[in-house]
Amino acid sequence: MKLTISKNELNDAIQQVAKAASVRPAIPILGGIKFDVTHQGVTLTASDTDISIQSYIPAESDEAVIAKVDKPGSVVMPAKFFVEIIRKLPAEDVQIEVGDNYQTMIRSGSTDIQMVGLDPEEFPVLPSIEENEVLQLPGDLLKAMVRQTVFCASTSEQTPVLTGLLWNLAGGELKFVATDRHRLASRISRVETPDGYRLSNVVIAAKTMVELSKLVPDGGGLVDIVVASNQVLFRLGHTLFYSRMLDGTYPDTSKIIPQTFKTELVLETRKLIDAMERAYLMSREEKTNIVRIVTLENGTIEISSSSSELGRVTEQLEVIRQSGEPLRIAFNSKYMLDTLKVIDSEQLVISFTGAMSPIIIRPADHDNSQYIILPYRTTN
Amino acid sequence: MKLTISKNELNDAIQQVAKAASVRPAIPILGGIKFDVTHQGVTLTASDTDISIQSYIPAESDEAVIAKVDKPGSVVMPAKFFVEIIRKLPAEDVQIEVGDNYQTMIRSGSTDIQMVGLDPEEFPVLPSIEENEVLQLPGDLLKAMVRQTVFCASTSEQTPVLTGLLWNLAGGELKFVATDRHRLASRISRVETPDGYRLSNVVIAAKTMVELSKLVPDGGGLVDIVVASNQVLFRLGHTLFYSRMLDGTYPDTSKIIPQTFKTELVLETRKLIDAMERAYLMSREEKTNIVRIVTLENGTIEISSSSSELGRVTEQLEVIRQSGEPLRIAFNSKYMLDTLKVIDSEQLVISFTGAMSPIIIRPADHDNSQYIILPYRTTN
Repeated sequence: MKLTISKNELNDAIQQVAKAASVRPAIPILGGIKFDVTHQGVTLTASDTDISIQSYIPAESDEAVIAKVDKPGSVVMPAKFFVEIIRKLPAEDVQIEVGDNYQTMIRSGSTDIQMVGLDPEEFPVLPSIEENEVLQLPGDLLKAMVRQTVFCASTSEQTPVLTGLLWNLAGGELKFVATDRHRLASRISRVETPDGYRLSNVVIAAKTMVELSKLVPDGGGLVDIVVASNQVLFRLGHTLFYSRMLDGTYPDTSKIIPQTFKTELVLETRKLIDAMERAYLMSREEKTNIVRIVTLENGTIEISSSSSELGRVTEQLEVIRQSGEPLRIAFNSKYMLDTLKVIDSEQLVISFTGAMSPIIIRPADHDNSQYIILPYRTTN
Repeated sequence: MKLTISKNELNDAIQQVAKAASVRPAIPILGGIKFDVTHQGVTLTASDTDISIQSYIPAESDEAVIAKVDKPGSVVMPAKFFVEIIRKLPAEDVQIEVGDNYQTMIRSGSTDIQMVGLDPEEFPVLPSIEENEVLQLPGDLLKAMVRQTVFCASTSEQTPVLTGLLWNLAGGELKFVATDRHRLASRISRVETPDGYRLSNVVIAAKTMVELSKLVPDGGGLVDIVVASNQVLFRLGHTLFYSRMLDGTYPDTSKIIPQTFKTELVLETRKLIDAMERAYLMSREEKTNIVRIVTLENGTIEISSSSSELGRVTEQLEVIRQSGEPLRIAFNSKYMLDTLKVIDSEQLVISFTGAMSPIIIRPADHDNSQYIILPYRTTN
């Protein structure tokens, strides 16, 4: 294998795929980036077996030569050092030449690097996914849906399926759900699908969805999504992102969402965030993060928190609209803040069915997202 | 004590003094910020007994009212929570009122905070320093001198005095020295001093000098410095910074600096940094960070490093001027990089007296700074 390639193009592709290389690989090959070089272009692949990322650099693009291939071939390079050194090479081009036993020479300007590559035959084979049905999502929508749900996924490995994001798709409506049993996020969107296309119990690790989000460029572009039996493939331009699905059946969360409410408050999102941040600072001193909301007679609510050592914060906040019964409820302020920060409307609605029942939060001007927080059962 | 004060002015002063409050105080009072309020203004103080910072907010400035004092008095507030909550208060003004037993009410807009203050009588007394002789340094010069030396101070508590920065001043020349026994930085500057003013063996903890540097605003202003028997006071506008001196006698480092050299190289600083960074990446894989320089016949040097697992990086670098004998030497690339990054000239001079002798690095166009790195004793 021998080629000369643009440093910047190579660096961009390497930065993308390197996210799938194991940081502490069980076997060295899983900490590598595989090069497959043909006269048409260069394919880079990294895989930790849970996720795999593949990026393709065409030899020519818009008549500009990106890579000049003298001899096709394959090799696996250790990712960690390789990722850092390519970025710091002095010239605009990099020459890579693989000799016997995968002895590799990398040359750029007056820099010579000798490295020992690994046998590409030992590299994990990517899942083969038949592209019968392709779902297309706008990249910005996918990023938003991930950001607005993923923080509710569990971080405990006790119930692995809850560390994932649930995808459901039926009747042209895509729904993401995440829950750690204390709180729940649900986000829906109308999407265009192939006729009769459905997805159910597709669960992808939350941290994988976050990594994928980072690869999706801001502002436009469609992401192709192909769901196979236990793998999902995301295609973004020249980059392919494969993720294993999580095993297990995601719990049915529809039952825990109350349908009738005793109290509803419409509040200004920004003002509630500010007040909640101050209350959070005090509540954080007690590990429980408990904050209380009490409705007052004068069209305001009181938000308060206290710490036995430090003292007490009390906030008065104007209510835009209130309906139903007076209320007194306690909850985890960190959970509330996480939720408020992803609300994409200037006003929001908080609905209560009592001090012991789930709190529902949603934007005031649309029904696309809904959040649930379980209250604390306190005596006062 | 009762006053109403501008949130922004209070916040600025608190952020400054809070750096001296203990993060994990042995007794609660050392994790506090003391308020001393008079009709003239508000003095804030924090102290972990090693360093103390005091900031003064005048009640009026340029005819604008910053603080309206209803009742003078003193109190100590727990720093950590206080620092964070003041920044997040909703209104432009903050009212602080201290009642019986230091029960404190903080009000801003619709936010009420009750806190338990501490007895100001228990707060450490600041050192009293007689201002007989005041040394004045331009703030930018002080920051530069700290940045260009402090990285060579020891981080090991085995010889506490070496964790400090040595100040020497004689004949109007101020000199900073730092060394961890493997490398040494020395930086001098002509300064204006009171007649016959001298300093010797004044050693201030390197991390204290870094904290002080952060308080010095960029671009102008003089810092007043008063050296007492075991304390140094730095005055920056309305802020006083007290530091304890380190005990012990700083070693005499003048003897380890070679006076004659066998080889001298003049190199471009930026190109050497780039080449050294690449060599460092490989050397880092072996914990020793060993990099080698060899002079070649053709007016270049070869910089190389290798790792038994990964391979080898070889760099060719043009020499601008070379004098003396051919050379082959090995050293710690991290130490070299730290030094190169504070060289403030486009070209530098590296001087050698042999493979086992200290390496001297200095800017090519002035003699104000000088760096020493001890080589590795290797067999090849």
